[in-house]
Amino acid sequence: MTRFSLNQATTKRWPLDELVAGCVAAGVPAVGLWREEVAEYGLDKAATLVRDAGLTVSSLCRSGFFHEPDWYDNNRRAIDEAAALGTDTLVLVSGGLPGKSRDIDGARRHVSDAIGALVPDAQAAGVRLAIEALHPMFASDRCVVSTLGQALQIAAPHPADAVGVVIDTYHLWWDDQVWHQIEQAGEQGRIAAFQLADWITPLPEGVLLGRGLPGTGCVDLRRFATAVGEAGYQGWVEVEVFHEDVWSRPGAEVLAEAFAGYRKYAE
Amino acid sequence: MTRFSLNQATTKRWPLDELVAGCVAAGVPAVGLWREEVAEYGLDKAATLVRDAGLTVSSLCRSGFFHEPDWYDNNRRAIDEAAALGTDTLVLVSGGLPGKSRDIDGARRHVSDAIGALVPDAQAAGVRLAIEALHPMFASDRCVVSTLGQALQIAAPHPADAVGVVIDTYHLWWDDQVWHQIEQAGEQGRIAAFQLADWITPLPEGVLLGRGLPGTGCVDLRRFATAVGEAGYQGWVEVEVFHEDVWSRPGAEVLAEAFAGYRKYAE
Repeated sequence: MTRFSLNQATTKRWPLDELVAGCVAAGVPAVGLWREEVAEYGLDKAATLVRDAGLTVSSLCRSGFFHEPDWYDNNRRAIDEAAALGTDTLVLVSGGLPGKSRDIDGARRHVSDAIGALVPDAQAAGVRLAIEALHPMFASDRCVVSTLGQALQIAAPHPADAVGVVIDTYHLWWDDQVWHQIEQAGEQGRIAAFQLADWITPLPEGVLLGRGLPGTGCVDLRRFATAVGEAGYQGWVEVEVFHEDVWSRPGAEVLAEAFAGYRKYAE
Repeated sequence: MTRFSLNQATTKRWPLDELVAGCVAAGVPAVGLWREEVAEYGLDKAATLVRDAGLTVSSLCRSGFFHEPDWYDNNRRAIDEAAALGTDTLVLVSGGLPGKSRDIDGARRHVSDAIGALVPDAQAAGVRLAIEALHPMFASDRCVVSTLGQALQIAAPHPADAVGVVIDTYHLWWDDQVWHQIEQAGEQGRIAAFQLADWITPLPEGVLLGRGLPGTGCVDLRRFATAVGEAGYQGWVEVEVFHEDVWSRPGAEVLAEAFAGYRKYAE
């Protein structure tokens, strides 16, 4: 069976029931879901829809955002949502600098503490916290965890089945340390998710919606897939792309292209 | 005497003769010049203008762009231009991935080889090649050298007075390795230039023109100034900001704000 999973953000405007039907029709066995879209559809209804269709939820995106005052309650809810959807992987994006702070070391320490505080809740729910490093261009406003090395450091004090890391090609491709860190992540049993997206330029204003479907950019995706495989990862491979041009296309067409990209670069 | 230098890119639309007069009037003893603006004004004329005003040229920005076919001749010319302007520091921005390449390791090796090929020319001209790491968001299209660690690796085979590195706060602030690397750069005598700019969001389309004047963003500039000082650097401190909003303001006003930012964070 294929290990490809469609991350819902790639087809953001595809209604969830159509997305699920589209995956079934295309022989895609898994989806990565997003909290906002799931909440809009209804958590229990979404869980039933996906389960009845025979799909696996490869991950729930995303929680974290530890710079916000209500981070603890919000993350507790996210853990429950992941459990309700039947996924064992909750992706954490750490959040940026609080307020007018210039103390990135302090923000990173807070992220470590916050994740530590959530570990018992996650373990009780059978959900693994998957720390995602975001590209350094997001360090101030979205994620102070900027490298796989930092994600591994934050995960280190906790059991590997409670806290893992996400390998996302878009965020990590520029880093010459990443190949060694993927090996380390594998040795530690920390690889919780693997996400494919390509790097294209020019970046749009705000830079969030600048990703390309696999094959449209400059990332050596095959090298990542090989490295992650050699590190022992045998889980789902999500294609996760945010781009206005991709979102404006029909969901089934984007799904087909994402699936083809997976086959070409990561199968 | 102050160690502040105005990098010309901060007041891009200020004609060179007005900029020089403005620096003299404000008690600013040094300027960092740009090749395009110097060429437009005339190389010899610019050299005379600056020299007659008693200003030091702290650096010439910039050469490099080793992914272009004519990189060797272009960099040879840049070395001569730096010598003609009486500066000992030529800033190198390495360039991005060539064509449709996905081989960032190969591009980085080529940069190393190219810089090695230029060392004899630079030494003969009494000009130091100053390798600048650019933020990883520029890795594909502008600079495959993304960290101070990589810049130091590329510099390592060459004498420290021939090849140094640039410490630019805008490009390096997110990196938790940078403090140790600044120490190393100091021990090796490699710090050739120190540039101040702040990180502000949202980033504009294309991300190049997104920098803030010192104090407007989230970078701990004082920490950088202290680290660079403790590493033994006693040279010029350039304020180098690219932003449409800054460029649209009167040059003298921007100069005053940049100088004040230097005093507040780096004096």
